[in-house]
Amino acid sequence: MKQIGVILSGCGVNDGSEIQEVVLTLLSLDNAGAHAVCFAPDIGQLNVINHLTGEVADGERRNVLVESARIARGNITDLKQIDPSNLDALIIPGGFGAAKNLGDYAIRGSAFEIIPEVAQAILAFHSAGKPIGFMCIAPVIAAKLFGSEKVELTIGNDRDTAADIEALGARHIDAGVRDIVVSSRGKIVSTPAYMLGPSIGMVAEGIDALVSKVLELC
Amino acid sequence: MKQIGVILSGCGVNDGSEIQEVVLTLLSLDNAGAHAVCFAPDIGQLNVINHLTGEVADGERRNVLVESARIARGNITDLKQIDPSNLDALIIPGGFGAAKNLGDYAIRGSAFEIIPEVAQAILAFHSAGKPIGFMCIAPVIAAKLFGSEKVELTIGNDRDTAADIEALGARHIDAGVRDIVVSSRGKIVSTPAYMLGPSIGMVAEGIDALVSKVLELC
Repeated sequence: MKQIGVILSGCGVNDGSEIQEVVLTLLSLDNAGAHAVCFAPDIGQLNVINHLTGEVADGERRNVLVESARIARGNITDLKQIDPSNLDALIIPGGFGAAKNLGDYAIRGSAFEIIPEVAQAILAFHSAGKPIGFMCIAPVIAAKLFGSEKVELTIGNDRDTAADIEALGARHIDAGVRDIVVSSRGKIVSTPAYMLGPSIGMVAEGIDALVSKVLELC
Repeated sequence: MKQIGVILSGCGVNDGSEIQEVVLTLLSLDNAGAHAVCFAPDIGQLNVINHLTGEVADGERRNVLVESARIARGNITDLKQIDPSNLDALIIPGGFGAAKNLGDYAIRGSAFEIIPEVAQAILAFHSAGKPIGFMCIAPVIAAKLFGSEKVELTIGNDRDTAADIEALGARHIDAGVRDIVVSSRGKIVSTPAYMLGPSIGMVAEGIDALVSKVLELC
């Protein structure tokens, strides 16, 4: 059974992982006969957003690993413990957590940095020739790490984000929510997911396509 | 398009809604061409559980509606605003939130009470002849409200919970994770979901079966 690492970034689209994208990824992997192994960094979230009002919850502090554990039903490990030699591929769902907690794209745009444990994990899979899937906003991380390799990526059709991806050296390809983009260099797969939506069923189709391609490339 | 109310009870299996069960319900409804309308009570959670350690997070306070909004991407309404005349059916996913926040089954067992807005909503759908689906631990709520009607329910095969359901007058029927139980009285459908698990794919099959039956009964 293929073992697929999934990196979470919290629990909730506005300050963590996009919950539906994570669950759809776990479902798709299980349906394909693969085993998901969840990881998240043991760090504080950038902020806590009240998802009912969209406002910052002043004074609240939450931990990315602890909140991510909610989606994974406790079956999750500190990202520092990840061992790429035991895993066949890596998938990074979206949500603002990918842009706020795995790095600071949400604050600094194309001048952003990725936190060391995330960058190290992704680079280790890439240099081992193992496929990596990025969904929603997470492809900006691939652009930062692999822009010099001119990888092809998609975040859907948002012009500002696409411009940032191109500024980092990668090539952005417009795509629909059911589509994936498979880079001609390296084994990098991306899908727009909730960068486009609008429905969970359509997002699921794109995620199924990404998971299928990632497993095929293993 | 059929409009299906979904009642959430927080965000996380140990103190709220079982996240995967909610997302699988939303996916199943969307795939079936129905529209999910999410609700949750605007009340404090019984407690906050650290889902990494399983321990109570002392001093933390969270709101059921605000946390439920994370799963629903903000598309959620105070349960007090629910209007059964605009909806065709109701579904209540599980997680400890159903036993801690929608009522106090987790504390008082079969002597528990259901909070008024939850009881009123369910009774309104039932008296209007509209179907109601309960998953995981949520069938204890159906046993409390409809035990006198001797409805048939399942929570899987947990003996203590089954005994509580029978003590409330309902009939418990052992079932597998892919199965549903359709009561011969009223339009009450139940499935064990993560009371059994173990895999998200199997839970999804049971939830798909429940959603399909609920829509058929509309």
